[in-house]
Formats: sequence, C-alpha cells, structure tokens
Amino acid sequence: MITLVDSSLRDGMHSVGHSFTPEQVAAVAAGLDRAGVDALEVSHGDGVGGSSIQYGRAAFSDDALIEAAAGAVSRARIAALLLPGIGTLRRLRRAQALGASIARVATHCTEADIAEQHIAWAAEHEMQAIGFLMMSHMIGPAELAAQARLMESYGATVVYIVDSAGALVPRTAAERVSALREALRPETAVGFHAHNNLGCGVGNALAAADAGASWLDGSLRGLGAGAGNAQLEVLAAALERSGLETAVELFPLMDVAEEVVAPLMARPQIIDRTALSIGYAGVYSSFLLHAERAAAKFGVEPRAVLMELGRRRIVGGQEDMIIDAAAELAER
Amino acid sequence: MITLVDSSLRDGMHSVGHSFTPEQVAAVAAGLDRAGVDALEVSHGDGVGGSSIQYGRAAFSDDALIEAAAGAVSRARIAALLLPGIGTLRRLRRAQALGASIARVATHCTEADIAEQHIAWAAEHEMQAIGFLMMSHMIGPAELAAQARLMESYGATVVYIVDSAGALVPRTAAERVSALREALRPETAVGFHAHNNLGCGVGNALAAADAGASWLDGSLRGLGAGAGNAQLEVLAAALERSGLETAVELFPLMDVAEEVVAPLMARPQIIDRTALSIGYAGVYSSFLLHAERAAAKFGVEPRAVLMELGRRRIVGGQEDMIIDAAAELAER
Repeated sequence: MITLVDSSLRDGMHSVGHSFTPEQVAAVAAGLDRAGVDALEVSHGDGVGGSSIQYGRAAFSDDALIEAAAGAVSRARIAALLLPGIGTLRRLRRAQALGASIARVATHCTEADIAEQHIAWAAEHEMQAIGFLMMSHMIGPAELAAQARLMESYGATVVYIVDSAGALVPRTAAERVSALREALRPETAVGFHAHNNLGCGVGNALAAADAGASWLDGSLRGLGAGAGNAQLEVLAAALERSGLETAVELFPLMDVAEEVVAPLMARPQIIDRTALSIGYAGVYSSFLLHAERAAAKFGVEPRAVLMELGRRRIVGGQEDMIIDAAAELAER
Repeated sequence: MITLVDSSLRDGMHSVGHSFTPEQVAAVAAGLDRAGVDALEVSHGDGVGGSSIQYGRAAFSDDALIEAAAGAVSRARIAALLLPGIGTLRRLRRAQALGASIARVATHCTEADIAEQHIAWAAEHEMQAIGFLMMSHMIGPAELAAQARLMESYGATVVYIVDSAGALVPRTAAERVSALREALRPETAVGFHAHNNLGCGVGNALAAADAGASWLDGSLRGLGAGAGNAQLEVLAAALERSGLETAVELFPLMDVAEEVVAPLMARPQIIDRTALSIGYAGVYSSFLLHAERAAAKFGVEPRAVLMELGRRRIVGGQEDMIIDAAAELAER
C-alpha cells in the first residue's frame, strides 16, 4: 500500500508566488480529503517561517493556512514542512497546535545533522517525524543512505529522497531508493518526492515504488517549483495501472485537480526551456522564478544562469547567489 | 545508440487540427535537422491521405508538407506514415518521390496482416520499411510479438510498439519491448512511440530503451494527440542522464522547441481531466478533440464518453462511433 502525500499547498506555493488564501487552501484540502489522499502539506513553499524577502513574501501566514486546512479535512492528516535554518522549532510547535500531525524536516542532502533537534522534538511530541533529503541527485546512493540513517537515528519514521532539481531519471532514482531501503530498519519507510524537469516526475515515482519506496509525494496538476511535481491524480492512475494500491478514489481526485486547482494556477506546469534547464543543470527547482527575474534584470539567458548555478553547485537557501551569477555572466 | 524520430509534424498535427503550413513545416524541419535529429515524420495526423471529414481536413496537402520538409533538411531523413485502410500505396509512392525515405506502416495491434502489401512495397523500393503496432496496450506481450513477427516477415526493419492510448506504464511497456526483442531477429530493431496521458511519456520511452528498444519517437514540446507524445527535447536530456547516447545536440533542440514550435501551439500539452481519462480508459489519443466536441454536442461529460469508448474497445479508424457513444449516453 502506497501512502500518497499532496504537496499542492506547499510546493505549489512556489508557482503562485506563495499567494494562496485560507479559503483556497480550505477548498483544495476538502477536495483532497474527499478523494482519500492520506496527507497534505501546507505552508510557504520554503516551509513554515519561509515568508521573507529572500524566499518570497507569502500573502497569508502559515498559521492561517494550516488552520484553514485542518478545519477542512475529516480524514486526511496535515503535514508541516520545516527547513532548519529558515524556520525554527517554535514554528513546528505552532503548526502542531493548529492541527498538523506530521513534521517533515528538510535539509540539503549532505546536512542531515542540522535536523536532529527538530526531528527529535517531533518524535517526542506525538508528531510523526519525517526526514527530507533535498537535492538528492548531488550525492551517490551510499552517501545518501548514510545521511538517511542519521535522520532515522534522530527519530524519523520515514526518510524521503527529494529530487529538488528534478535531475534524477528512473535508473538513478531507483538506485537511491534501493540503497536507503537496504540501509534503514525495515519499519522505517522510504519516501520519494519528484520534480518533473526531465519529464520523469511520474516515471521516477513509479520506479521508486518498484524499488521499495512506500511514501510518494505529488501535487494536483503538478503544481510546484520548476516544472512541478509528480502530477498527483496522474500518478494515482499510473500506480493503479502498475498494480500498486493506494487509498485514493481516482475520479474525485481528478475533479478537484480540474475544478479547484486548475483555476488557481498562474501558468500551466509545462516543461519549457527554463524548466528543462533546471533539471539538466541540476539546480533547485524553486530557483525558476528567481533565475528568470535575475536573467531579465541583467539581460542574460535564464538557461545560462541556470547552467552557471549548476556549475557552482548552489543549493537551496542560497537564493542570493542567483543575482551574483547573473551579474557576473552579464559582465563576461 | 538510440535513433530519435520526431513526430511533431505528424502526430502534432492532431493538436493543431492538421493546420500546419509548408512554411511552418520547413521551419520546424530545419531546426530538427540542425539539432541532429535522425528522422522526422510529416503528414496529416492520421498519415498520408488522412485529410477527410471523418479524420479532419488538413489545411495543406501531404505532398506540399513533405516537399517543404525535404527541402529544409540536409541530414535528417523524412518519414511518411501510412495507415492501410486510410491511405493507399499511391500515397506512399508519391511521398517517396517528394523526398521521404522511410515508410512507417501502421495498423491496429491485432491487424498486422493488412500492412503486408505496403511494407513489402517499401522494402522493395528502397524505402526503409517500419511497422507500427497501434494501441499496443490492448493485447499482451506474446500476442504483440506474434504480430511484430508478421511485420518483420513482410520486410520491416524496425517494429514499433505504439502506445496510442498512453495507457502503458514503464512496467507494461518494458514487458512488451522484451517480448518483441526476444521474438524478432537481432538485426530487426524495436521502436517505442509513447503518449503522455498517464504522465509516463518520457518514463516509458526510457523503460523501453532499457528493455532493448533502439528507436524512440518524441515530439517538440510534446506536441501530439491526447496529452501529447514523449517531449523530445526532454527525452534527449533524460536519455543523456540515463547514460544512453543519441546523435542530437541538446541546446539547439531546446531552442527549436521554445522558439519555433511553442508559438505554433493551439494549447499547451498538459494532462487535464480529459487527457488523463484517455490514458485511464485506454482510448486512442487522437479521439481527444472528437470526444470533447461530441460531449459538448450531447451535453455529457467527456470523461464519461471516453470511459464508454474504452468499454466498447473502439480503436483508431472508428471515429464515427464517438458520436454514437455520446448520443447513447445522453439518452440514459
């Protein structure tokens, strides 16, 4: 049985400039709940506490959004994402008080140790603690598995391989899942969070499931950073056709995607040249809008900026370096 | 080495109502040629001779389009698709005279025998003969392999598994490729033509390559029937990241997708409710616009029409039955 987690109301925030209202959040959450989705993640795109000039101001507070989601669901669980270094423990405590029962604690794939405090706190305070290893394409399977074991040792019951750059393909995704599956205790689940920049959002999620991942993320209409996430309603259908079970009902899920989410989208989640360049360069998906703005400001190609960021191995949290890269390219 | 075939100017015709002009065809063909794509397919969406009330009238003749493409390329080969029953041998002869050197002869997956005359003619007249088994999800791997052997026996040097409904997933695509790979002579290549209705366009093409397919179709920006094809420029990047070689140069390919094809598109190739329903129901992708029109005319849901067509196992060439199904649903 695959556990499906929707990220439309968190990762999707990146593609609407963190502008969802509590009413919109409640409508999407109610639809996901009706369709039987196991859990949904709600917050600023960069997690609770992400609203800032650096990461983009949100139109509403995480508190208001989490409260709206919690009030709209009857079965689905609410997850809050936290990036240590951006948000603090205080935010997680607050999210719990407002109805979140899952803490997803995200770090760069080589920095699991900064999640110790937050994962341990969640585990001790009746939140399900989940570890999130971002930009997982940047290190090999064995190194990634070692980081996953750290998160497990802090109390994570699920550890996610997060393909933040959408740079993995089914083969490299499956290798990483297999390594984690082998390294972690049997009772610790492996999760996979895909981006579609190389067109492999759904394909990677299926390959991950075949390799032993049992928690999969997606978002309605693919709403998310870069070319978006694995498109949830499509993934649900593809899982069924692959002989893998989920708790969702497909038609209600398709309906909330089409009738509630599609009208809220600022642009369709296509794979244009910039989004493809993100996957090819191996750059953090949420850099998409930042890179487009910096490229326009300095009169350079977004693709050139993204390739440069890939060469510099810039990771999430280093958004200010996008301007530097664009400015330097303009001077060449 | 993977041979890449672009179908933007044939399958893509479905999503622009068969309206491409010779000038547009020449511009796309020149771009594909510059980027090193091995071959490109040009004609009405339903192959040479497809222009009709039943399948949709084309704005320009296949002759004019093939001639325009042939005049615009220096390295890339031109392929003409022919569906026996829709086009006749005369059309293939004419396509060859105008510059096509590849004949792709397509039948429903259980009807390979109607391709004998056309494949044999092409093989005897210095065209590369390729067999195209459409709606390949409808029969199992062994039965499909038997049909592929028929096409091989007529003279086909490549036999394609065509996922016309976009209903395959990596597992079921790979099973079919493996069966053909085992059944055919080593010198006969296996091809795969994907549709993205279940989000697996690129993922299925990669799985097919891993299972032994060496000819892969795609189209720029995914332009094609249903949710479109495997997005060619994305597939090229994903193949590279999977360690599989092609002859294309990625950046020029991305550029022709973005600068030449994107402005010609009537709508983005997203997976909306109707496109997803096509993959889930297992219905011919080019039914998309027909089913939307029929549903609107009779005041029923497109999804309901598509599920009904799937139940009736309606296949390509039976477009008139879409109206019947919609009318009967309206009476229920």
